[in-house]
Amino acid sequence: MTKLAVIYYSMTGTNLKLANWAKEAGEEAGAEVKVLKVPETAPSSVIEGNPAWKAHVEEAKDIPEVTLEDLEWADGIIFSVPTRYGNVPGQLKQFIDTTGGLWAKGKLANKAVSAMSSAQNPHGGQEQTILQLYTTMYHWGAIIAAPGYTDPVLFEAGGNPYGTSVTVGENGMKENVEAAVKHQAKRTVAVAKALSHL
Amino acid sequence: MTKLAVIYYSMTGTNLKLANWAKEAGEEAGAEVKVLKVPETAPSSVIEGNPAWKAHVEEAKDIPEVTLEDLEWADGIIFSVPTRYGNVPGQLKQFIDTTGGLWAKGKLANKAVSAMSSAQNPHGGQEQTILQLYTTMYHWGAIIAAPGYTDPVLFEAGGNPYGTSVTVGENGMKENVEAAVKHQAKRTVAVAKALSHL
Amino acid sequence: MTKLAVIYYSMTGTNLKLANWAKEAGEEAGAEVKVLKVPETAPSSVIEGNPAWKAHVEEAKDIPEVTLEDLEWADGIIFSVPTRYGNVPGQLKQFIDTTGGLWAKGKLANKAVSAMSSAQNPHGGQEQTILQLYTTMYHWGAIIAAPGYTDPVLFEAGGNPYGTSVTVGENGMKENVEAAVKHQAKRTVAVAKALSHL
Amino acid sequence: MTKLAVIYYSMTGTNLKLANWAKEAGEEAGAEVKVLKVPETAPSSVIEGNPAWKAHVEEAKDIPEVTLEDLEWADGIIFSVPTRYGNVPGQLKQFIDTTGGLWAKGKLANKAVSAMSSAQNPHGGQEQTILQLYTTMYHWGAIIAAPGYTDPVLFEAGGNPYGTSVTVGENGMKENVEAAVKHQAKRTVAVAKALSHL
Repeated sequence: MTKLAVIYYSMTGTNLKLANWAKEAGEEAGAEVKVLKVPETAPSSVIEGNPAWKAHVEEAKDIPEVTLEDLEWADGIIFSVPTRYGNVPGQLKQFIDTTGGLWAKGKLANKAVSAMSSAQNPHGGQEQTILQLYTTMYHWGAIIAAPGYTDPVLFEAGGNPYGTSVTVGENGMKENVEAAVKHQAKRTVAVAKALSHL
Repeated sequence: MTKLAVIYYSMTGTNLKLANWAKEAGEEAGAEVKVLKVPETAPSSVIEGNPAWKAHVEEAKDIPEVTLEDLEWADGIIFSVPTRYGNVPGQLKQFIDTTGGLWAKGKLANKAVSAMSSAQNPHGGQEQTILQLYTTMYHWGAIIAAPGYTDPVLFEAGGNPYGTSVTVGENGMKENVEAAVKHQAKRTVAVAKALSHL
Repeated sequence: MTKLAVIYYSMTGTNLKLANWAKEAGEEAGAEVKVLKVPETAPSSVIEGNPAWKAHVEEAKDIPEVTLEDLEWADGIIFSVPTRYGNVPGQLKQFIDTTGGLWAKGKLANKAVSAMSSAQNPHGGQEQTILQLYTTMYHWGAIIAAPGYTDPVLFEAGGNPYGTSVTVGENGMKENVEAAVKHQAKRTVAVAKALSHL
Repeated sequence: MTKLAVIYYSMTGTNLKLANWAKEAGEEAGAEVKVLKVPETAPSSVIEGNPAWKAHVEEAKDIPEVTLEDLEWADGIIFSVPTRYGNVPGQLKQFIDTTGGLWAKGKLANKAVSAMSSAQNPHGGQEQTILQLYTTMYHWGAIIAAPGYTDPVLFEAGGNPYGTSVTVGENGMKENVEAAVKHQAKRTVAVAKALSHL
C-alpha cells in the first residue's frame, strides 16, 4: 500500500484545509495517508496575542507533529505551507534542517514529492515558495511530480503548474482549489506507486 | 523498451560529449537512445568567424536535429546545454517555444526528465541553468528525476544535486564528470521505466 | 537626463500596452524614454497564420527594434514580456545571447533594471519569468530595483513584489495594473538616477 | 555615513570569516559596519555534542545578535550563510519571519543588499541559496546589488555573479575568496551610498 505523508504548516487553518483535501483524495487513490503538522517554533506569548492563530493551534491540537520516522515511512510527500516572503516558513525550514542524519543514510531519496502554497496577495510568492521547496527536495533525491497542466481542473484553480496555490483574503480562500488539490494528491500517489518499481 | 532522448546544444562540443556518455549509459540500462541536437539559430556568418564553433558544427553534422516527433516518442529526456547568463541558450528556448501544439494535446506530460549544464566559471550559472529548465518542465507536466546525492560518484563530479554540471576551461573539462553523467542517465531511464506503470 | 529603455516582446499587444504606460510614467519622472521591441524570430508563415499576431506586428511596425547600442545608451531598463513555460520568450533570450561583446567590455554593468510579465493563467509563471530575467541581469552586473510593496497601488494590481504582472484572458487584462506599472517605472528611473552617483 | 549590517550565520566559522572580510572592506569604503550574528535556535544539547560547533559558539560569544533595530538602522545589508539543502538555514529564516512589523511600516525598503554563501560541495547550492535570499529581499523592497562580473577578482574566486561563494572542505575554504568578498562589500556600500539620493 502506497504511503503518503501530507505535511503542512498553518497559522490560521488554510493549509490544514488543503492538507485534509489531499488526504481524502489520497485515500480514494488507495494510499495510506497521514496528515502531519510541522512543529511550531514561535513563542507561546506571540501565539496567545493573536486570536486567530491561537484558535487554529487549538483546532489542530490532536494532529500529530511530523517526525523523522514519518519521512522514512513515506513513499510520497505533499507539503502545504503559506509563503513567508517568497520562501517556506521558518518553522518548516527548521524541521527540514534536522534531517541530515536520514539524508546521509540515503533514506530520503526516491520519494514522490509535490507541494502546495498560499499567500495573501494573488502574486505574493505562491510560485516561488513551491519552487524553493523543490530545490531542497532535489538535495534529498526526491522525484518531483508537479501537477503541470495534467487536468482541466487546474485551470479553474488558477493554473499554477508547480503545485496548487491559493490566495487567502479576509473571507477565506479566493479560488476554488479543492478539485485541483485532489488531482494533485492522486497524481502524487500514482507517481509514488509507479516508483515502487524503481 | 524505454525510449530516451538526449537533447543537447553545443558550440564547441562539451555538451555533445556529455550527451554521448549519457547515451552509452542509457543503452547499458536497456533503453533505446537518440542523441539529438537543438537547431542552430545563429547566422552562418557568425559561426564562420569562430573556428572552434565552425569545427564543432562540422563534427556534429550527422547528428539529427531534434523534432517535435522526438519529444512525443520519448519516455525520458535528458537535456544538456551550456549556460547563457544563468539561463538556457536562446537556441533551446526557441525550440521549446515551438511545442505549444503538443503541449495542448497533453503529449508532453509524464516524461522522466533531468538536465546537465556547463559554464566557463565554476559558479557561472550551472545550478540556475538546470533549475530554470526544470521550471519549464513543470509546465509540460514532466516528472523531474534530478540525481540528488543518490550515488557517491556525484561528490567527485562537484556534487551538483540538480544535475551533472561541468566547468570548461581552455584545456577542456575541469571536473571528471563521466561517471556522474552515466549515473544520471541510468537514473533517468530507471524513473522513465517505472513511470510506464503510471 | 536619466535614460530609460523599455524593452518588450509581444505577440498580441499586452506587453506593448505595459511598455507604453511605463514610458508615460518614465517621462513624467523626468527621464528620456525609448520603447523598443525585441526582434521577432518566428517565421513569417507562422505569423501570417495567426490573425491576432499578424495584427499586432502591423500595429508595432513603427516601433524600433532594440539594438546593442540601446543597451549601452540606457541608465535603466524595464523588460516586459509574456511568459513562455515559466521563462522568457525565445525571442528575448536570442537577443540577450548576442550581448557578449558589450558584456566583456563591462558596458552592461550598473544599470537599474526591473521587469514585468504576463500570462494566460493567474499563476502561469508570472513570478518565475521575472525572476529568471533577474538571474540573467545579475550576470550583467545590473542593480535590480523590483517594486516590492513600496506603494499601495501594488496590492490592487495583484501584489507581485518582483515586478508588475498581468493575467490576460479573452477580453484582455484581468487586473488593473496601470498604476502599478507607472509606480514601477518611476521607481526604476529614480534608482537609475541615484546610481548616477556611483 | 553609510551604515552597513553584515548579518551572518555560522556553525563552524566560515561565514564569520567572510563577514569579517566584508567588515574590513566596508570600513575602508567609509561605512560604519556592524557584524551581527543570527540567533541560534538549535538546542544546546545538539551543539554540545558537536565539538566544532561548540568551539565556534564560544568564538562568537561576544558578537551581538542581530535585532530588528539593526535592520532599521542599516542602509545596506550583506548576508553570509551556509546552504542548507539549497536554501538559507532555518535560523536565518526564523529571524526573517519576525520582521513583519517593520515590513508593514515600510522600514525595510530601499536598502542595498547582497549575499554570500558556502557549501561543502562545489555545486552544493551556493547559487540557489543566494538567489533564494534575493527573492525574499524583493518582498522587502530591497535593491539588489549582486557583484556580477564587475571586477576581475571575481573570476579567481569562482566567478559566482550572484554573490561570493565558497566551498568548505576538511582543510577549510577551497577557493581564495577574500578579494571577492572585499569587492562585493565595497560595491554594496557604494550602492547604498548612491541610494541615499533616492
